[in-house]
Order: sequence, then structure tokens, then C-alpha cells
Amino acid sequence: MMRRVVSVFVENKFGVLSRIAALFAARGFNIESLAVAETDEPGFSRMTIVVTADERLLEQVMKQLRRLIDVIKVEDMTEKEHVDRELVLVKVNAPPAKRGEIVELADIFRGKVVDVSVNTITIEITGAEGKIKSFLSLLRNYGIKELIRTGKIAISRGG
Amino acid sequence: MMRRVVSVFVENKFGVLSRIAALFAARGFNIESLAVAETDEPGFSRMTIVVTADERLLEQVMKQLRRLIDVIKVEDMTEKEHVDRELVLVKVNAPPAKRGEIVELADIFRGKVVDVSVNTITIEITGAEGKIKSFLSLLRNYGIKELIRTGKIAISRGG
Repeated sequence: MMRRVVSVFVENKFGVLSRIAALFAARGFNIESLAVAETDEPGFSRMTIVVTADERLLEQVMKQLRRLIDVIKVEDMTEKEHVDRELVLVKVNAPPAKRGEIVELADIFRGKVVDVSVNTITIEITGAEGKIKSFLSLLRNYGIKELIRTGKIAISRGG
Repeated sequence: MMRRVVSVFVENKFGVLSRIAALFAARGFNIESLAVAETDEPGFSRMTIVVTADERLLEQVMKQLRRLIDVIKVEDMTEKEHVDRELVLVKVNAPPAKRGEIVELADIFRGKVVDVSVNTITIEITGAEGKIKSFLSLLRNYGIKELIRTGKIAISRGG
């Protein structure tokens, strides 16, 4: 069992997302994260799915995906050189006396403060998995109030 | 018809994503973007869905969502003060002579260069909708080779 990143290029029609999600569910795969949005070609979307799965089982699912009418292309990005990134919005407890150190941490990790209230700070951070993990584990010392992640998106390296 | 951002907090069980997507599809809603990933509470995920929808129809779908067994909370973020952000990875044509100006553009928009090849540059950018739109429209002059977006995620403002 390995964590895998699958990229699916689809025609943006009614129900394509639910058919794809159903296909994973039918095989007992739990989708860890999924991000889907329009590409630069009108009418086409790209989906990045992260699953922990046995390689052979995943290959079967990928074959089934390719048979769906609105699916144009399916790639296991884990197999190729790629860059993956995730975006996280995180709200932490931040009484005035702690604000300075939290903002400092955000700066170190190149996060951006997107909101401040009397007792909280909300930070936007992007990066690869390890960086986000380290940042969040430091923030946990202050108390995380809310955490929203996009899940990974992945793009191939090179031309 | 208005563009709306819906946040759904769910228990991360098999099939919850496909049931939610099916519910939108059954009503004829096309999901423009969807991002789902784990929160900081083990076993719980948060989904941000962007749809263009009539307010009353969307309210009906939200009611149906609330009845699903693994759905904990459903919020129309459009109705409240919130911050939304999206992450984009974009690969543009960049022959050596154009590299400098493209990197300059990335800097202006606080994007980050994540990969360079002989003829392309790949940039990571985050922001609200308007900023990303402006950046992409400038990049189109060079030729966009690949574009992958997470779709929006949204977090409430304040404490």
C-alpha cells in the first residue's frame, strides 16, 4: 500500500465527478483528498486525487476510469517526475501576547496572514507535504481552531 | 443565478464524496470546483464546493446534504464574512529570451517558480479570484501549456 497521486483530465459534464468518486468507493478506496477545477480549455477540468492504494488495484481503477465517457486522460503522477503543492488556510488561537511569535513563524514558512481577530490569526500557506506538516505541528502548540486544505495538485516536470 | 461557495464538513467514510457529488448532479448543478481534504480532526474532512446556482435551489440541496448520514455541517460561505483562496500551478512557454520577463511577472504577483526547463517555466500562485485571473491573462501572451487549479477553499473571518 502506497500513497498515490492520480491526475484525471475530464470533460466538465454533469455527474462526471460523482461517477469517478463512485468508482473509487466501489473498490473500497478511501479518497484522502481530491481537487477538481477548470483548466485553461473551456469545458475541461482536471482532477487530482490522492489515495493510499495497492498498485495493482489502483491500475484496475485507472483502467475503469479510462472507459468512462467523459474521461480524456488518466495518469499516475507518482510514477513520473512532478511537482506537487497544497494550499492550507489555518486559524489559530492568538491572544495579543502571542501574535508576534505566530506572525514570525508564518514569515519563516513564507505563509501569509490573511485575517486577524482579537484572539485569532488566520494564515495561508502553500508547499509540499513536509513543509506544511512541520508548520502545522508548530501551530498546534497555540491551538488550531480551524484548518482547511485543498489537497494536493500535481504538475509534470519539464517541457 | 449566482456563484456560491459551500462548505461541507463530513465524516471521512467510503462513498461520502460520491453521494454528495451525486446529489448535486441529480439537481442538474454543475460543480465548478471542489476541494476536499482532511481537517485537523482525524477522520473528518472538509469540502469546499463552488457552484453557480439559484439561491432557492441551492438551499434545497443544502437541506438534502444535511440529511446525509456522514455530513456534520453545511454552510453557504457566500452569506458570511470569509476569506477564500485558490492555488494554481501553471506551465508556460518560456524560451530563454522570455524567461526574465516571466519571472518578473511571477515576482510582481508573488508567485513562485517551481520548475524550469529549456522551453518552459512552471509557476505556483495563490490568491483570490481577481488576482489569479489577472496573472493568467498576462501569462496567456506567452502560451499556457498546462494549468491545474485546486478550486477555492474558504474560511470564516473573525474568531
